[in-house]
Order: sequence, then C-alpha cells, then structure tokens
Amino acid sequence: MAGVEAALERLGLTLPAVVPPVAAYQPAVRSGDYVYVSGQLPMVGGELAATGKVGAEVDVERAYELARICALNGIAAIASIADLDEVARIVKVTGFVASAPGFIEQPKVINGASELLGDVFAEAREADGRRSGEAGRHARSAVGVAELPLGAPVEVDLVAELRPTAKMRLV
Amino acid sequence: MAGVEAALERLGLTLPAVVPPVAAYQPAVRSGDYVYVSGQLPMVGGELAATGKVGAEVDVERAYELARICALNGIAAIASIADLDEVARIVKVTGFVASAPGFIEQPKVINGASELLGDVFAEAREADGRRSGEAGRHARSAVGVAELPLGAPVEVDLVAELRPTAKMRLV
Amino acid sequence: MAGVEAALERLGLTLPAVVPPVAAYQPAVRSGDYVYVSGQLPMVGGELAATGKVGAEVDVERAYELARICALNGIAAIASIADLDEVARIVKVTGFVASAPGFIEQPKVINGASELLGDVFAEAREADGRRSGEAGRHARSAVGVAELPLGAPVEVDLVAELRPTAKMRLV
Repeated sequence: MAGVEAALERLGLTLPAVVPPVAAYQPAVRSGDYVYVSGQLPMVGGELAATGKVGAEVDVERAYELARICALNGIAAIASIADLDEVARIVKVTGFVASAPGFIEQPKVINGASELLGDVFAEAREADGRRSGEAGRHARSAVGVAELPLGAPVEVDLVAELRPTAKMRLV
Repeated sequence: MAGVEAALERLGLTLPAVVPPVAAYQPAVRSGDYVYVSGQLPMVGGELAATGKVGAEVDVERAYELARICALNGIAAIASIADLDEVARIVKVTGFVASAPGFIEQPKVINGASELLGDVFAEAREADGRRSGEAGRHARSAVGVAELPLGAPVEVDLVAELRPTAKMRLV
Repeated sequence: MAGVEAALERLGLTLPAVVPPVAAYQPAVRSGDYVYVSGQLPMVGGELAATGKVGAEVDVERAYELARICALNGIAAIASIADLDEVARIVKVTGFVASAPGFIEQPKVINGASELLGDVFAEAREADGRRSGEAGRHARSAVGVAELPLGAPVEVDLVAELRPTAKMRLV
C-alpha cells in the first residue's frame, strides 16, 4: 500500500469529507497544473473545533493543532478535484492567525499546517519512491489578523502543483 | 451581442475606468496565461464609496455592495491589459475586510465580489456558448484585517486565467 | 559589469545572506517558471531591524525603510534558488503592515518594497539591455494586520516569474 492516502493512514490521520464553502466559491479550483485551495477553517464534522483569539482564549499548542486540521481539510479539498498522488509539491501556504493583542508567535501556530503537509507528503514518498523529497516543503507567509470567519482562530490557504501529466478526477 | 462586456450591460453594470494605483505598482500584470490583479478598493469616480470598519460604521449589507465594487474594479483592471472574453476562469479571490472587534461575517461580505464575478462570467457564457460554466467559480480566502488603505472597509485581489491562445491587448 | 547583482551594487545595496525560515518551510520555492518567496521580515544580520506597530512605535518613513529591507531579503531568497538575471518579472507583491488603530497609509509603507524592486530590476535592464522595462513592475496588495511574527512592523511576500529557459542553480 503506497501513496498519500496510505501515508495519511500510517500517520493516524483520516481524510475528512471536503468542507462545503461557507459561501459562493469552491473548496478548490484547478488551473493548468495547479490547484488553488480556498482558505480552510479548522472544521471537524461540520463545526469549528474552536473559536477565539490565539494568545487569549486559545493557546499556541491548541492553535498548532487547529492549523493541522486546516491543512488536513486542505488536503481533502485537493482530493475533491485531483488525485493526491499526482501532487508534485505544495508550493505556497498562507496562514492567518486571529491574534490577541501582543501575540507574535504566528509561525509556531502555522507550523501545524506546514509540518502536517511535510509529514504526509514525505511519508508518501518513502513508501512510493516516485515522489520528490521536496513535495511537502513550501514557501509560506504567516500573519496575525484581527478576526476570522465564524470566529475561527486559524485559517490556511494553499497552492499545490500537480505533475504535468496529472488527469482531472471525473466527478 | 455577446461576451463579457455585453453580460455586464445586461446585469446593469458599467465597466469603470481602471483605478490608478495608489502607489508604485500596476493595476494588473500579465504573466503567461495569468492576470494578477492588485488589491482593489471600493473606488467610484476616484473616491472611496465608504470608509470605516465593517461591523461598526459599515454594516454587512453595505460592505457586500462595496465588495461588488471592488470586483467590478478588478474586472476593469483585467480589461486594461487583456480581452475580457479571453478570461478562461477566475482562479483565486482574496478578500480583506477591515473588521470591527467581534465582526466574523467576512464570508457574507466577500460574497459581494464572488457573486458578481459568477454572475458576469456565467451571463457571458450563456450568451456566448464558448465559455465554461466554471469561469466565475473560484477558490477564495476571506479574512478580517485591522486596517486597510485610505480607511477602506474592503479590499479584494484576484488571479484570472486566460485561454492559452489569448493575445495581449495592444496599448 | 551588468545584471541584477551589479545593479544592486550601483544602488549601494548588498545582497544579504538568505534569512533562515523561522519555521518548517523554505525561504523560496521554485515551481515551473515561478519562484514563490515566503513572507520576509525586516531582518538584518539575523535580527529584526525594528519591532512595533506602524503608526505608533514606528513611523511611516521608518516603515518604508523596513519594507525595503523585506524586499532585499526577498531578492536574496530568490538568489538562493535561481539566477537573479533570469528573473523575467516580479509578478505579485503582498505587503502586510502591523498597523496601529487608525493607521491607513499601508501603500506608502509597501512602496518601500515596490520601489526597491523597480529600481533594482530597471537598473539591471539599463546596463544589460536584455531585460524588459517591466521587470520590476508588479501587481500588489497592501493591508494592515493586527500582529506580525516576532513583533515585526512589516512582512512582504512575492511571486517572481523566471525566463522559460532559466535553469535551476545547483545547490
């Protein structure tokens, strides 16, 4: 058993159902060999796993876990329109952290997303042999914002590059 | 009469003059088959249609209208460097909402931009027959920020994909 | 002597060492003919040149200088994975300004980044003759955020397009 879904399983992760957009857009869009993933909130089973500001109601360890959930939802969004094993690399991650005044550890929070993406795609490569060791290593911006939709503490969007030969999944 | 400009007319919309950048950048830049549109403010006739924070001075219905104006200005920015009928799809929209403390309805606000883009490009397709029904359906992030340029309540940027055969408009 | 590094020298700028990421990501990632540069802070010699909010502890003139440093660090990040003379254009700049309440001059701040990029790549073109005058002219968004990593007043990320023939630098 190989590939990204197997890697998720070995890491003890279950790919969730894709989170329906809160509004008039798509969870993910393919353009050429790229997938643009919409801002993902830490939704679990249709509800936010937490609300509040990081540095106040939500501590940095919990926020790290929430960023992992955002990234997992992002992988689910990619899977809704493409074959995960055709992901050549995660190119860019942008992490928005709803920050209490004076909270400046946004990088530690968004590491939850970065490390999950690194783990999942590195695991897939080891079992698979096809995948570049760079698949999960991405450029990133992390910033502290005033408020996020529904009161979410974290929002993460990303851009993934597919192999040139990747076919669209028929849906 | 077909195409995007006709669709705008049927929707009762007039494409404004492109908004000159506030500073040292371009309203839109073409790179390969993509157009990157700079962050658009809700400018009408050279002035902001409103200022203030959404959830305080500006309510969500008004902010929705302002996001529509941002998107219309974004379409004008695309039109300044490419033929609108060569837009294959809007790929990504990022919406920044200047948010009063506790305002968490950023998605409702940015729907103003998303729905306008959907309406314009879907209308164009129906009349035209050439255009994919997906042309206006995009990935999106919406976040609540502390302050926006000139005191604007909303700022929207976007990435559009052109058909591979699209030619640059001579200017 | 020609090219981007010579242009930097004529402008009195020294390309710094690439700033190591604060966390689990890369300073820059190449994907096809694009380089995605991670959010750059105004680091000088491994330390932030300043901390605090623009409009409070940091004035707009100082913030402009800090945005220049962010851009210079961004050029260093590109140089760590590609030949600067193969940059066809800077496509998009996103500037995040940690803003005190009521500070709405984000464009003046991020002009520090935009103008540096324009100067460096325009200078390179004049000496070189090969480069398009558009190389430094980019799309841009500038927003005011609540907090930035480590207390930085400014963060800038960017996307650069390489010439189609550009080769990756062996590292």
